[in-house]
This record gives sequence, C-alpha cells and structure tokens, in this order.
Amino acid sequence: MKLALYSGTFDPITKGHKEIIKRASKMCDKLIVAVLNNSTKKTLFSLEERKEMVEEVLKDIENIEVVEHSGLLANYMNEIGCKYIIRGLRAVIDYEYELSLAYGNYDISNGEIETVFIPASKEYLYVSSSVVRELALYKGKLDNYLDEVVIEKIKKRFEE
Amino acid sequence: MKLALYSGTFDPITKGHKEIIKRASKMCDKLIVAVLNNSTKKTLFSLEERKEMVEEVLKDIENIEVVEHSGLLANYMNEIGCKYIIRGLRAVIDYEYELSLAYGNYDISNGEIETVFIPASKEYLYVSSSVVRELALYKGKLDNYLDEVVIEKIKKRFEE
Amino acid sequence: MKLALYSGTFDPITKGHKEIIKRASKMCDKLIVAVLNNSTKKTLFSLEERKEMVEEVLKDIENIEVVEHSGLLANYMNEIGCKYIIRGLRAVIDYEYELSLAYGNYDISNGEIETVFIPASKEYLYVSSSVVRELALYKGKLDNYLDEVVIEKIKKRFEE
Amino acid sequence: MKLALYSGTFDPITKGHKEIIKRASKMCDKLIVAVLNNSTKKTLFSLEERKEMVEEVLKDIENIEVVEHSGLLANYMNEIGCKYIIRGLRAVIDYEYELSLAYGNYDISNGEIETVFIPASKEYLYVSSSVVRELALYKGKLDNYLDEVVIEKIKKRFEE
Amino acid sequence: MKLALYSGTFDPITKGHKEIIKRASKMCDKLIVAVLNNSTKKTLFSLEERKEMVEEVLKDIENIEVVEHSGLLANYMNEIGCKYIIRGLRAVIDYEYELSLAYGNYDISNGEIETVFIPASKEYLYVSSSVVRELALYKGKLDNYLDEVVIEKIKKRFEE
Amino acid sequence: MKLALYSGTFDPITKGHKEIIKRASKMCDKLIVAVLNNSTKKTLFSLEERKEMVEEVLKDIENIEVVEHSGLLANYMNEIGCKYIIRGLRAVIDYEYELSLAYGNYDISNGEIETVFIPASKEYLYVSSSVVRELALYKGKLDNYLDEVVIEKIKKRFEE
Repeated sequence: MKLALYSGTFDPITKGHKEIIKRASKMCDKLIVAVLNNSTKKTLFSLEERKEMVEEVLKDIENIEVVEHSGLLANYMNEIGCKYIIRGLRAVIDYEYELSLAYGNYDISNGEIETVFIPASKEYLYVSSSVVRELALYKGKLDNYLDEVVIEKIKKRFEE
Repeated sequence: MKLALYSGTFDPITKGHKEIIKRASKMCDKLIVAVLNNSTKKTLFSLEERKEMVEEVLKDIENIEVVEHSGLLANYMNEIGCKYIIRGLRAVIDYEYELSLAYGNYDISNGEIETVFIPASKEYLYVSSSVVRELALYKGKLDNYLDEVVIEKIKKRFEE
Repeated sequence: MKLALYSGTFDPITKGHKEIIKRASKMCDKLIVAVLNNSTKKTLFSLEERKEMVEEVLKDIENIEVVEHSGLLANYMNEIGCKYIIRGLRAVIDYEYELSLAYGNYDISNGEIETVFIPASKEYLYVSSSVVRELALYKGKLDNYLDEVVIEKIKKRFEE
Repeated sequence: MKLALYSGTFDPITKGHKEIIKRASKMCDKLIVAVLNNSTKKTLFSLEERKEMVEEVLKDIENIEVVEHSGLLANYMNEIGCKYIIRGLRAVIDYEYELSLAYGNYDISNGEIETVFIPASKEYLYVSSSVVRELALYKGKLDNYLDEVVIEKIKKRFEE
Repeated sequence: MKLALYSGTFDPITKGHKEIIKRASKMCDKLIVAVLNNSTKKTLFSLEERKEMVEEVLKDIENIEVVEHSGLLANYMNEIGCKYIIRGLRAVIDYEYELSLAYGNYDISNGEIETVFIPASKEYLYVSSSVVRELALYKGKLDNYLDEVVIEKIKKRFEE
Repeated sequence: MKLALYSGTFDPITKGHKEIIKRASKMCDKLIVAVLNNSTKKTLFSLEERKEMVEEVLKDIENIEVVEHSGLLANYMNEIGCKYIIRGLRAVIDYEYELSLAYGNYDISNGEIETVFIPASKEYLYVSSSVVRELALYKGKLDNYLDEVVIEKIKKRFEE
C-alpha cells in the first residue's frame, strides 16, 4: 500500500485511535488522517479544535498528513488516488456497521476502494469517544484513555 | 398464507425493499404493503410522497395493496384479519431487533400474529435507506440502490 | 405457500421442533417433514426410529407428511415441486449458519428455493437435541423438552 | 457479596427489571437500587415519579434500598463501599454494550468495581422500557410487561 | 452468596481461569472448583492430573475446594446445597452457549440454580485451553497463558 | 506492506479464496500463500494435491509464492521476516474466531505480527470449503463456487 486513509470524527482523539493509526502508518508509505466534519451530530469540539488535537497527539508519526474533510470520502479518495481505507475493529457490533460502510465504499467506487481492518489492541477494545466524553462530564479518571493534551482540553470544555 | 403484511418507513423505498416484497408476494395470495407514519423520526419525504414512490416502484406486482398506517400494527392487522408479518433479514444486529418486534407482536396479539423472515438477497444485504440518503446528500452514485423514479425524487429533494 | 418443507435430524424430536412444525403447518396447504439420514454424525436413534417418533409426536397435525431423506434436499424439492423450506430460528449463532444454508439452497437451485424463518417461541429458545441427549445420559428431568413417548424411548436407550 | 448495586433509568420499571432485582437481592445482604437521572435523554417520567414507581413495585423485597443518582456511579459506589454492580443480560447486542460499561467501571475504579451479570428469564428476554412506552402510546396490552400500578401511571401520562 | 461453584475441564488450567476464580472467590464465602470428567472428548491430561494442576495453581486462594465431578452438575449442586454457578464470559459466541447452559440448569433444577457471569479481564479475553494446547504442540511461548507449573507439565506431555 | 502471508487448508481452494488472494496480492509487493498441513482434521485432498490446485488456480497472479506449511505460522513468519497476515472476513462468527487467532499471533510474536482483515466480496460471503465438499458429495452444482480445474478433481474424488 502506497497511500491509505484513516478517518474519524475524533471528538476527541483517544489513545485507541492513536494506537491504530501508529500501526496503520507502518503498513503504507503515507497515511492520510481525515478529520470528518460530522454534519449530522453536534460535536463537543469544533472541526478546527479536533484537527488541532489530532495533529498534536500524532506529531511524532512521520508519514501521516492530517486533513479536514466534508462530503463523500469516496470522491476525495478518487481525487487524490487513494485506494485503501484502514479501520480499527473492536466489538462485533462495530463489525457489521463497518462492513456496511466497506461494501458501500466498494460499490460507489466501482470496486476501486478497499477497506482494510486491523483489530484494536486488547487494551483499547472498549474505549470510545462517547465513553470518554461521559467520563469527562462526571470528572472521572481519563489518563487510560486520552493523551495529556486532550485531557486538558476536555476538562476545560466541561468547565466552560 | 392467504393474507400477509410487509411494513416500513420507506424513506425512500430501495431496491432491497422491492426485492423482498417481490419474493414475499409469491408466498401469499395478497400482500399488504404498509407505509408507516413514523411519528418519532423526521422523514426526508412526507407520508404521501413515500406512499406514491412505493406504488410507483411496485406497480408491476399484482397481488399487493399499498396502504398508509399510523398506530399499532397489531390492531390494524386484527381488524383486517391478517396474521402474518413478512420481514427481510439482513445483518445479525437487525436479527435481534427484529426478534424483539416479533415477540412483541406475538405477545400483544395473544399469539395471533406470526412474523416470518426471509433473508435479503446477498446483493442487497448491506443496503439501507439511511445509507441511500447519505449518498444522495453527497451526490454519490445511486443506481445500484434505487429505482430511477426514486433517484429523481431524492436528487430534487437535496437540490431544494 | 402451497407446499413447504421442514427438515431435521430429529435425534430425537423435541417440543421445540413440534412447536415450530405446528406453526409452520398453518402457513401452507401441506408441509413435508423430512427426517434426514445424517451420514456424517453417528445418531443416537436410527433413521427408522427417528421417523417413527416424529410421526408419533406429530400425529395430530393433519396437513403434514413425514418422509425419510438422504442426499441433497434441493434435488428432492425440485422433484416434488416444493419451493419453500421453513426453519425455526433460535440464537444469533444459529442465524448465521442458517443464512449460509439458505443462500446455498438458493444458489444451487438457481433461485427456485426460498428459505423462510420463524422465530422459536421464547419457551423453547434454548432447547436442542444435544442438550436433551446429555440430560438423558445423566438422568435429568426431561418433560419440559420432550413428549412422553420420546422420553420413554430415550430412557430405554440409555439403559441399554 | 455483602453490598451490591442495580441501576437503571426505569422509565418506567418493567416486570423484567423486577424479576432481575428479586433474584439479585438473594445474592447479597443488601441491594441498592439506583434510579438514574438520565441527563442526556428526555424521560417520560420525572426522576421522582420513576423512583416512586420503583419503590412501589419493589415494596415486598426487604433487603433493598431505592436511591436517586446523578453523576458517575463509580464515585458513588466508592463512597458507600459497594464493589458489585449486578446487571441483567438479554440479547447479544446488550452484551457488548454491557461489557464496555463493565470494563469502563473496572478501569476507572482501578479494579475495585466488578460487574456481575445474570441472564434475564426467558419470559422477559425481549422486554424493554422503550417497547413498553410505544405500546402505551398506541394503547396496546401492557399487563405482560408492567405491574398494575405502573400501567395506571403510564396510561394517564399518555392521556395528558 | 454463601456457596458457589466454578466448573471446567481445565485441560489444562490457564491464567484466564485463575483470574476468574480469584475474583469469583471474593464474591462468596466458599467456592467449589469442580474439575469435570469430560466423557465425550479425549483430554490431554487425565482427570487426576488436571485436578492436581488446578490445586497447585490455586493453592494461595483460601476459600476454595477443588473436587472432581462426573454426571449432572445440577444433581451434585442439589446434594451439597449450592445454588450459584459462576462463569467467566469472553466472546459473544461463548455468550450464547453459556446462556443455553444457564437456562438448562435453571430449568432442570426448577429455578433453584442461578448462573452468574463475570467478564474475563481484557488481558485474557482470547485465551483458551485449546489455543494453549496448540501452542504447546508447536513449542510456542506459553508464559502469557499458563502458570510455570503447568508449562512444565504440558511441555513434558508433548515430549512423551 | 512489502511481504504478507495468506494461509488456509484449501480443501479445496474456492472462488472465495481466490478473490481474497487477488485483492490481497495488490496490497503488498509479495504475497506468500501457505497451504497448511492440518494435522488435526482429515482432509479430502492430500497436502500435495491441495498445493497443486492452489498453484493452478492462482497461476495468473504474479507476485505470489505458494508454500506448504506445518507447525507454528509465527515461527515461519519470523524466519522469513514477514510481519503481516491477511485474512478474509465473512460472517460475525468467523470474526470472533479470527480475532482470537490474531491476538494469539500478536502475543506469541511479542507484537511483531499484525493481522489485517479484508471483507469477502458479497458474492462469496457464505461460501466455504465444507459447503463445497457437501455439494460435491451429493452431486450438486459447483461452478459458482469452484474453478473448473478444482471441479474436475473433486468430482473424481467422490467417484473413487
């Protein structure tokens, strides 16, 4: 794989995301990390804030590029000539949802876009941004789930 | 089975729905297709528009009748003497949700209403109205998923 | 549905099987109950014994016919002009296995054979012939799971 | 287990909840039943109403204490020295969600808080508060799912 | 819970078993660990060897008693007045099988025997005796999965 | 990915295997296809026969090498400096089994070996060697599932 893409809302980026991205970055020459402008759900952080945190957390990984993205991923990937989406897999429930996305991207790109799955490490199997937001809301312990820089941001957000 | 019912929100009707309805219509003398007035979610198309599209897409199937429905399906089925609900099955996640509906309908009808499942064809296993709406929003290719008449309607809707 | 088929190894027939067959028999004019000659697993009861018990347990259902079957079901169904297989659904694990059989039968019959699923009643969701055989082996209570005539036969078998 | 906790939104309490709580209460010396102040979803009944119904429905179980709770359960449990959460398990989908909560509570309590699961009785496997609310909305039969006192309250609510 | 039971084939006992048993032993006054005489599968170690290893690995846990068992667990539990089975839960597939056992034991004991599930720790979510036996066969690294005393025994077994 | 590995028993190789291997071969510079010497199950074809069929079916894919393998894959991969296993994913049940293998290989290689999953194409979602063997046994239609050269071999085998 020369070029691959990893995308997410990253609201905020967790240690689980980071771990997958690290491993994904070793599988390809260059990895695009696309921060999605989720138009249907209200996010805790703005697109700019989310992108900033992603860049900060991933700053030691050399062969990645962080971009913002709105619209259909398949179109964007077609433009930049990227054929691979890398996704982390966690529970069985994720699996079926991810499969439907994978088949969707395959179909609308006429078989040009492949989705490649790598299992989340056992440590992060049950970590998600939504759990993290709830923990932060109730002032729970966050250092197993988030990088220091993200913890500060989310604490501040709930104080506002 | 003399009389059976297939219901859905059909927002909009997909080729996956059509394929299930075609096969279901062969299993019974008459099939009621009930377009549901989903009161809890906002739909992209109005009840009338959805019913119109369903009628248009299914116009070649002879032994069906398309109706609008609000309220408890079990009550309606009791009134018209219909004992069978036919449902398409896709992923495992659907399966458990569908089971809970099936047991619910069985319980509240004192065992009068049976739910009968037929597996979606492999081609349409991962097609859903929500995927289709997202594709339309981003101007993705729709002809694998929707009939021509529906494609026109959904394109227009997103231009409005 | 004019003609439909329900098949199994029935080693032995349980109350769960009986309940599904009763409901299935109401969905069609005639239901074939095929007792399979399982060539890959050793059964507790012979094909004849299994068929006899099935006939005995189902003797009050009028529109069924119990047959023995070896070989490919799809071929047999083609011969007798039967297009529907009815299957009971229990757990999620069953579901995927059943789906693979359903797609298999659909494919090898060129789309002629449909599989129709009905959910097991909650009471029998977790009953299986293998659990029953283990219970019998250890002299556990069987009347929740088996008809009286089958209980006698299985007790005798384990005394032999 | 000396002290254990069972929590829920109980909007409203169902016969399924009651059955789990009865069995859970026998596993420990004292069971706290925590009615959660669900801040993210709008509930049909207020926190006070939900707590009242829970107390009414459970009044015959001696070793329980019904409390209201807002915020992080792990913090509250730590304060009162409670190390066990008891949860009912229904479908496979529940299972994965429940696992993620269990690991979350384990992690943020540094391994102090254990989650213990007991399977819902087969009768209540597919009962949920959301199904019950929908049934009530459409004037469906509720006595399989709810205690008499709750049925009255929910009927009144939908007449308002 | 005064008295509870944890059972298994333990062919051989893994660190995953040990971890569950440790946590289970804290939930009750006394925990019976029953080593099952699996009559249907050939085991790598004899019943005596398996029991010996279990005793050795668990020697530091005070409130347990290791026993051998053949026959129906429900009968044995009835004799000794034990009402609780504790089981570790791993993957979703396990879950459904475990549920069927739990309902089986509940049914044949007329509701006397409850099964209580605790989730395996994330570290041991995917450890099983069968994986361990395969690793040993091919001289793979075993110290993540087995206690030292068990490693010696299994290595010797495959040298024989 | 420079070097990756795809392994299986291939008893016999199906069109589903071939389709995954084709796509996998595009993701890396070189793909090793390892035909496993399954020591625990009796195979229909010998290791040599299986390897021959694999080579024949895959002869048009340039960057692959077909090898026979006995023993622990992780050891072999370590020797040849291969860090990636590519696996096709089909049903949810497969998924959990595959996860346990993936974590096993990750653990015993100290995190050196990654498993990468690609979803089977919808057409081959429910194809397996065991279904194919059963079809062949009963003289069912095989051309949807197997290449011509394999069909001949399996037909001959069942005539012997």
